[in-house]
Amino acid sequence: MSNGRETKVSAPVWSHSPEETGEIRERLVAFCAGRDVEPLPACDEALLHEDLATNEASTLALCAAGVFSRKEAAEICSALQHLRREIEQGYIRLDPRYEDVHINIEELLRAYAGEVAGKIHSGRSRNDQVACDIRLWQRDRVLAHLGNLIETIRAFIQRAEAEKATVMPGFSHHQRAFVTTFGHLLAAHAEAWLRDVERGLALFSRINRCPLGAAAGFGTSWPIDRDQLASFLGFEGLIENSLDAVSSRLEVEADVAGWIALWMTHCSALAQDLILFSMEEFRWVCLSPETTTGSSIMPQKRNPDFAEVIKGKTALAHGALASLLSLGKGQPSGYHRDSQYSKQIGQDLWGEAFQIPEILRIVIETAELDRERMRAATRGGFLEAAEWADYIAREAKIPFREVYTAIGQAVDRARKKGRLDARTVNATLKERGISYRVDEKAAARFESPEGLLAARATKGSPNPSLAEAHLTRLRSEVEKHAKAIRAAERKISAAEKSRLAEIARLAKG
Amino acid sequence: MSNGRETKVSAPVWSHSPEETGEIRERLVAFCAGRDVEPLPACDEALLHEDLATNEASTLALCAAGVFSRKEAAEICSALQHLRREIEQGYIRLDPRYEDVHINIEELLRAYAGEVAGKIHSGRSRNDQVACDIRLWQRDRVLAHLGNLIETIRAFIQRAEAEKATVMPGFSHHQRAFVTTFGHLLAAHAEAWLRDVERGLALFSRINRCPLGAAAGFGTSWPIDRDQLASFLGFEGLIENSLDAVSSRLEVEADVAGWIALWMTHCSALAQDLILFSMEEFRWVCLSPETTTGSSIMPQKRNPDFAEVIKGKTALAHGALASLLSLGKGQPSGYHRDSQYSKQIGQDLWGEAFQIPEILRIVIETAELDRERMRAATRGGFLEAAEWADYIAREAKIPFREVYTAIGQAVDRARKKGRLDARTVNATLKERGISYRVDEKAAARFESPEGLLAARATKGSPNPSLAEAHLTRLRSEVEKHAKAIRAAERKISAAEKSRLAEIARLAKG
Amino acid sequence: MSNGRETKVSAPVWSHSPEETGEIRERLVAFCAGRDVEPLPACDEALLHEDLATNEASTLALCAAGVFSRKEAAEICSALQHLRREIEQGYIRLDPRYEDVHINIEELLRAYAGEVAGKIHSGRSRNDQVACDIRLWQRDRVLAHLGNLIETIRAFIQRAEAEKATVMPGFSHHQRAFVTTFGHLLAAHAEAWLRDVERGLALFSRINRCPLGAAAGFGTSWPIDRDQLASFLGFEGLIENSLDAVSSRLEVEADVAGWIALWMTHCSALAQDLILFSMEEFRWVCLSPETTTGSSIMPQKRNPDFAEVIKGKTALAHGALASLLSLGKGQPSGYHRDSQYSKQIGQDLWGEAFQIPEILRIVIETAELDRERMRAATRGGFLEAAEWADYIAREAKIPFREVYTAIGQAVDRARKKGRLDARTVNATLKERGISYRVDEKAAARFESPEGLLAARATKGSPNPSLAEAHLTRLRSEVEKHAKAIRAAERKISAAEKSRLAEIARLAKG
Amino acid sequence: MSNGRETKVSAPVWSHSPEETGEIRERLVAFCAGRDVEPLPACDEALLHEDLATNEASTLALCAAGVFSRKEAAEICSALQHLRREIEQGYIRLDPRYEDVHINIEELLRAYAGEVAGKIHSGRSRNDQVACDIRLWQRDRVLAHLGNLIETIRAFIQRAEAEKATVMPGFSHHQRAFVTTFGHLLAAHAEAWLRDVERGLALFSRINRCPLGAAAGFGTSWPIDRDQLASFLGFEGLIENSLDAVSSRLEVEADVAGWIALWMTHCSALAQDLILFSMEEFRWVCLSPETTTGSSIMPQKRNPDFAEVIKGKTALAHGALASLLSLGKGQPSGYHRDSQYSKQIGQDLWGEAFQIPEILRIVIETAELDRERMRAATRGGFLEAAEWADYIAREAKIPFREVYTAIGQAVDRARKKGRLDARTVNATLKERGISYRVDEKAAARFESPEGLLAARATKGSPNPSLAEAHLTRLRSEVEKHAKAIRAAERKISAAEKSRLAEIARLAKG
Repeated sequence: MSNGRETKVSAPVWSHSPEETGEIRERLVAFCAGRDVEPLPACDEALLHEDLATNEASTLALCAAGVFSRKEAAEICSALQHLRREIEQGYIRLDPRYEDVHINIEELLRAYAGEVAGKIHSGRSRNDQVACDIRLWQRDRVLAHLGNLIETIRAFIQRAEAEKATVMPGFSHHQRAFVTTFGHLLAAHAEAWLRDVERGLALFSRINRCPLGAAAGFGTSWPIDRDQLASFLGFEGLIENSLDAVSSRLEVEADVAGWIALWMTHCSALAQDLILFSMEEFRWVCLSPETTTGSSIMPQKRNPDFAEVIKGKTALAHGALASLLSLGKGQPSGYHRDSQYSKQIGQDLWGEAFQIPEILRIVIETAELDRERMRAATRGGFLEAAEWADYIAREAKIPFREVYTAIGQAVDRARKKGRLDARTVNATLKERGISYRVDEKAAARFESPEGLLAARATKGSPNPSLAEAHLTRLRSEVEKHAKAIRAAERKISAAEKSRLAEIARLAKG
Repeated sequence: MSNGRETKVSAPVWSHSPEETGEIRERLVAFCAGRDVEPLPACDEALLHEDLATNEASTLALCAAGVFSRKEAAEICSALQHLRREIEQGYIRLDPRYEDVHINIEELLRAYAGEVAGKIHSGRSRNDQVACDIRLWQRDRVLAHLGNLIETIRAFIQRAEAEKATVMPGFSHHQRAFVTTFGHLLAAHAEAWLRDVERGLALFSRINRCPLGAAAGFGTSWPIDRDQLASFLGFEGLIENSLDAVSSRLEVEADVAGWIALWMTHCSALAQDLILFSMEEFRWVCLSPETTTGSSIMPQKRNPDFAEVIKGKTALAHGALASLLSLGKGQPSGYHRDSQYSKQIGQDLWGEAFQIPEILRIVIETAELDRERMRAATRGGFLEAAEWADYIAREAKIPFREVYTAIGQAVDRARKKGRLDARTVNATLKERGISYRVDEKAAARFESPEGLLAARATKGSPNPSLAEAHLTRLRSEVEKHAKAIRAAERKISAAEKSRLAEIARLAKG
Repeated sequence: MSNGRETKVSAPVWSHSPEETGEIRERLVAFCAGRDVEPLPACDEALLHEDLATNEASTLALCAAGVFSRKEAAEICSALQHLRREIEQGYIRLDPRYEDVHINIEELLRAYAGEVAGKIHSGRSRNDQVACDIRLWQRDRVLAHLGNLIETIRAFIQRAEAEKATVMPGFSHHQRAFVTTFGHLLAAHAEAWLRDVERGLALFSRINRCPLGAAAGFGTSWPIDRDQLASFLGFEGLIENSLDAVSSRLEVEADVAGWIALWMTHCSALAQDLILFSMEEFRWVCLSPETTTGSSIMPQKRNPDFAEVIKGKTALAHGALASLLSLGKGQPSGYHRDSQYSKQIGQDLWGEAFQIPEILRIVIETAELDRERMRAATRGGFLEAAEWADYIAREAKIPFREVYTAIGQAVDRARKKGRLDARTVNATLKERGISYRVDEKAAARFESPEGLLAARATKGSPNPSLAEAHLTRLRSEVEKHAKAIRAAERKISAAEKSRLAEIARLAKG
Repeated sequence: MSNGRETKVSAPVWSHSPEETGEIRERLVAFCAGRDVEPLPACDEALLHEDLATNEASTLALCAAGVFSRKEAAEICSALQHLRREIEQGYIRLDPRYEDVHINIEELLRAYAGEVAGKIHSGRSRNDQVACDIRLWQRDRVLAHLGNLIETIRAFIQRAEAEKATVMPGFSHHQRAFVTTFGHLLAAHAEAWLRDVERGLALFSRINRCPLGAAAGFGTSWPIDRDQLASFLGFEGLIENSLDAVSSRLEVEADVAGWIALWMTHCSALAQDLILFSMEEFRWVCLSPETTTGSSIMPQKRNPDFAEVIKGKTALAHGALASLLSLGKGQPSGYHRDSQYSKQIGQDLWGEAFQIPEILRIVIETAELDRERMRAATRGGFLEAAEWADYIAREAKIPFREVYTAIGQAVDRARKKGRLDARTVNATLKERGISYRVDEKAAARFESPEGLLAARATKGSPNPSLAEAHLTRLRSEVEKHAKAIRAAERKISAAEKSRLAEIARLAKG
């Protein structure tokens, strides 16, 4: 409440324990409250840095083409330097009367450098300019997000390593199906996220192309070197066809949104896993108090709000993608103002998605497991039934399907007892005319979840003895991708450094 | 640019004509620029008025139940009065540490009234509170929007009246099909919007129900009279079942979004009609300069940005609905934090949709038509062909299908000439063994678009002589709905008046 | 396998119990397998009945207008009678060369009645014809579905009555929150579905309007009485404006899809409730064997496939609505072939949705509850905490918020013990300087879930003593709606009867 | 009509010209009518080939593992060979009682090979089996579609070459903006489609991985070599983690649908370009009669149904993607029956999308242009205005913005005349105090569209002299991708060949 009056309260009204403070806690609360208490900036204000970069590149290209004289170049470059300082210090707000960031910046440059600023729009249009700004903006987000994904995948793998022998029931159809490990579950999420990284890297290359110089979609008669423009901005190449450069504006955002939407589907699955496993009825996962929240009237509650919020954000991402695709449907070639909305959707989507990797990393690193309850849950649900069938089919060399039916009957018969034993199984086999009998001693392998897992023979299965090979491969993929991300970051930052150096050189006159 | 420095420019950089100023112009520019230059407020800040109303009703119910003593009632009611003044004057900003508007207001009341404010959350939860706030907020938007729709429909009908004899080609498959009138086209839009009003009124009744008193979904042991609560807030009745009251939170927003999404599909059709008719290739509609915008590099352009923006907003609305439905999919009964996102989506959607009726009203009122070009366009595309077939079939009592084929051939034969005449038609009839001949004089009726229209015999057709009856019915529906809207407004405002009077009475102690 | 060879197997390969047969079982299996093993018919073939009805009405209107002579009327009416028999007996398949049902039927009539059939397309177009067919088709589905909803709501209410005192934990955030009853949960679903019925009835009225006579969107010069056409088909009135009649084709399907999509969101919530409550970790609900399915390798499993399938269908419905809205976005007025897809989406959607009410009715009627486990689950999770706070606040007349914090501390202190008792609470109150002490005897009310429920004082809460009033209101709403549905059915069937009688009269010559 | 009676009609009722027959025509009509007259097969029936392949691979792996004895291997391999012949000849229909293709095939093998068929399900589950079938099915579609895209892109490029100097107005905001060429427009579409190919190739690699051996998500104790399985089926590698292998089933279809949805957005843009350019008001593009359709009552019409249908299919694709993502949202790890719907959505989507490239190729190859009208349209809309401003700014070394404003005024002044000339421009410059004067002779460059284009200086602009370099690069990308597609096809076909050879070897005993 910024109504001027000081209030004495300094923690949520329902707070009654020390865990509900601290930096992690604050980040979590902000993540969950989100837009409820945080306003959103104007979309074009978010592009100030990018539009500045675009202007810097335009200026250099126009200087190279002789459009600015040496003296004019010094004036405009000094103004650009001044404007950069102001933007970096957060001094600039948009004037709505100028409608967008492009005209705002042109006007600011006019204020700083005088009429020479009127030359800066030579050979360009707001169409290619905004397309360029958006590609710069999205490219940087994609790269930063890739870095965040890598961090969280590392946390998944590390915890997967630690929990590779933490047995628990695995599910299908929301029903206990077979024994697995918590580590194997986390490795599955790591694997899925690695595909997201793979997708993201391909996406990065696709969008890291320069549309500048396409002007309104038809090029320009100003002698501008488009390859030079691309190089000043650290792009990998051009969107060559000038019409395509302008029409594909929306494609960039739809492509990014498609990527995020698929990844968030993965996030929502992990969220649901955690919601289930931390329910009172499971109590397998105990989320750290910093990552759960309280109720305003039920003092006993510890709610996994972050996970619900991730599911909510996922629904939002799916709708955002739907909007972007619908925007583009049936839009003839060339620029149309409808596309303006793609910027807004794209920005809002990142606003929702960007923090998720960090939050999930914290949750996975800090969650405690009740390993005893998890292990106990592997008993009593006949999780061993399929393995009985497999074992007998293998040993007796009888078709699996035949044994499967027999074991089905044995399970029905053993419902009360709660588990299969050699006696029940053998009786059923006999009844069905199968001569094979299971040795009582051999049956011991079905008694413990560890025994059941140890029998898993196939690559990628939850058998703990196979985990190391699996995790090693995952780690090596992580590092391969991390290297590619770093290389891309270096290339962009080198381009910026060299662009600013050139501006500085020209500013000196 | 609010960077402190004064800049001299006071109109868009590309402005070069006096029409680009004025109040309408400003509204149009703001409508088109939208979020590009306008930030969005925090979602819970938008609910300050509604949460205050909810608190006022809660206070009155708790007073009636004796939870507040007479003295306490005076204290809390005074604080509520004070808070209302502050909110109405725009003094209150949310403190993010309190996560939401509910706790912010509870804390403010504590600051003004002391510890007695701790009683106000008796018998309620943030679950029913936010459900109530949202219903109040949505109910008021729906009602205001209904009023706006009515205004714009009136403008459609008025212009339809004026243009009931303004002939033009009607289209199907984007191809000229038959003669129609611009008035008939506008009447079609009016009719579609009237169904939107009909839907909106039914929606209003569905959402104007009170969830307060459901607490966290399980009611409360505090002796609160829920019917009284509903009455204090001007609701039509209760969402009785306490679990449903909390679970249906999201349904309210999905219901509203479904309504808006369908209506915006109508808006986007009108937008596309206007885009097409104002293209250089048509030049039938000349949008007023105030409602079109310029280009940053092509000085000759007058772009129908508003119409493109409406199409963009429509895509956004469709995605918003998709998000809301996806949010609810598979969510078990009861409150879940995922639903929080419905509030955000619902508010953002209104932010995009609310101004559209006014903009379209201005556009329709100010657009100029090139009636000569429209009329000229009815010639030369064989729009009369179907009427030839109908006429001959009727006069000669020959099956339509037979004549249809003959006229098809006659059209092929007359392609060069560009129109059908009795000679060509008769020659074709003869060739196909049809003995009937069209009288040269009778053929005159196919010569003019007015003649073709005058022959239309069915109710609801574009025959200008039928327009008056059609428009009269539309007008009477408009007035019927307008009356229902006014009645609903009065009921809500009476409830508020009586609630504030009761608060005032109690505040006096 | 219809490859001619007889195979001996007659039940699913994993079947091993007698419950897996029978009629209900078959319906369930077909519901779950769906399109996997069932082909879909051509969309226009599904409209044969509707197009026939449209042709019957057209014929009568053309007879009334004198287009058909008495002799011709007899011929065409006889052909219509013949065609009706063939269609009803399932003899008619579409010839793809004729592209659609309309031309197929026109050709069939030509085959039966000769060239006079060429008169039947007088004054109409396929545009208004398909719009009419679709309204007839959708109207009938909506009405039948409303009847099914009513049946299932009755089952919900009946079971709610039976389980009104079946206590269980209620949830929020997937965490146990307070005590509730299974009956109250079912009543919440009944209430939500009643709103769906309310929406459906309003929808029915909106779509039950006649577009016939609008022809291609511009009316016709044939003297056709549109009101008469509407009456022959049992419509409530006209879509008067001829352009609107054709443009609104897609609106009908989007309107219906929006209705279904919202209702299916409700279904998916119930499905998720049932999935959770029947998990091994809950075992509150035991779905009847006929409504669950087995695994191909894990013989112990009983999967709630029907519920997962309902969630899947819900996702499908949401996408269908997105497609329909996107179809309409930016489509100019008039008929465009894009709209053709709305028919397909609309039909497929009903194909997915239509059986759901029956399946859910069976599931709810046959599910068994483990009431002891449900009751036991209300203990140990501090579900009584909020009631302690409310009680003390009320008795001691201390602000709720203050007591809330104290009880929060008491809960932390009692974690090990697993429940609050007077001693712990009193100790905490003392520590926090609150002088009030809870009487040991009074504390008994917090011991049992029944005691907690009995204290709920508000209308619509799960207090069993309030259930009867709630259910009685629900029942009366059900019957009110059932009556409206029956009235609509009677009106339609009367129109058909009178139309066929008129056809018969004319056929006699 | 397959009602047994022969009807005499053999062409659409509205057909009246010879162009409406022939093979292309038939394909076009079928494309447009689509589902209206064509039923859809059961989804699992579409997977017969894939499930057979999966069974072949399983059999070989089980033989290698010694599960089948030599004699058993011969029996089952003979049965597989027999079944392959039957499937290839189209003899097999699914028996709905067996619920899916997997059990149907297991039962068929039992019918052919006897009880030994009961061994074939050893070490697998329907979960990994269907995941495998779907990856095979999707992989093959993706590859075939990539081939089709390449064919159509070649047609775009070829026509772009032919029309590189075909001048026309270019658009933005649906308003004429500047001069461009039809070839440049087509090259833009080719460029966009090349990105679709790039995306598709990356997608192909992502989905061409083997899940088989993951069984129900937890591996198996049967000693199955998963790498061998992958190799038998021509996969590039494994989905290693067994849980991920099963959970990622839906991801495959969402990934493919995202690809198609984005590409179809491109298709819909081309469709809209063609719809506009072939409107009566443009008449720039004359679609070949074989690719347009008629009206049932307006004999003069030639409708671009194919383009409208493509837009309709695009809306459908967008909804399909929305459904797939919504399906996955919040689904916990492991297999759930909801995912079954992904198969249906994925298949239906390909059913809608697969023919589009061929249709668009035919349309582009056969469309005729009215080059004179296109050229004439470049006059009179002040398309030269921006170039005047650029030229003067460059020559006079005056800031562009200043000249821009002057030219804006000159345009206003020249509205009546319809074009800018040196006199008007010079007068305006003078008025605004700009001393520079345009030479009358220099002004000639603005007179012709060719002159305006020749002045375009930037790479990728529509200047015809730059087209060759642009198209050469496009062609080289096409060939690079075509090569990659052929390599992938060869690898898959080699794997199949070797798999069948091994089956044949074993079948001999």
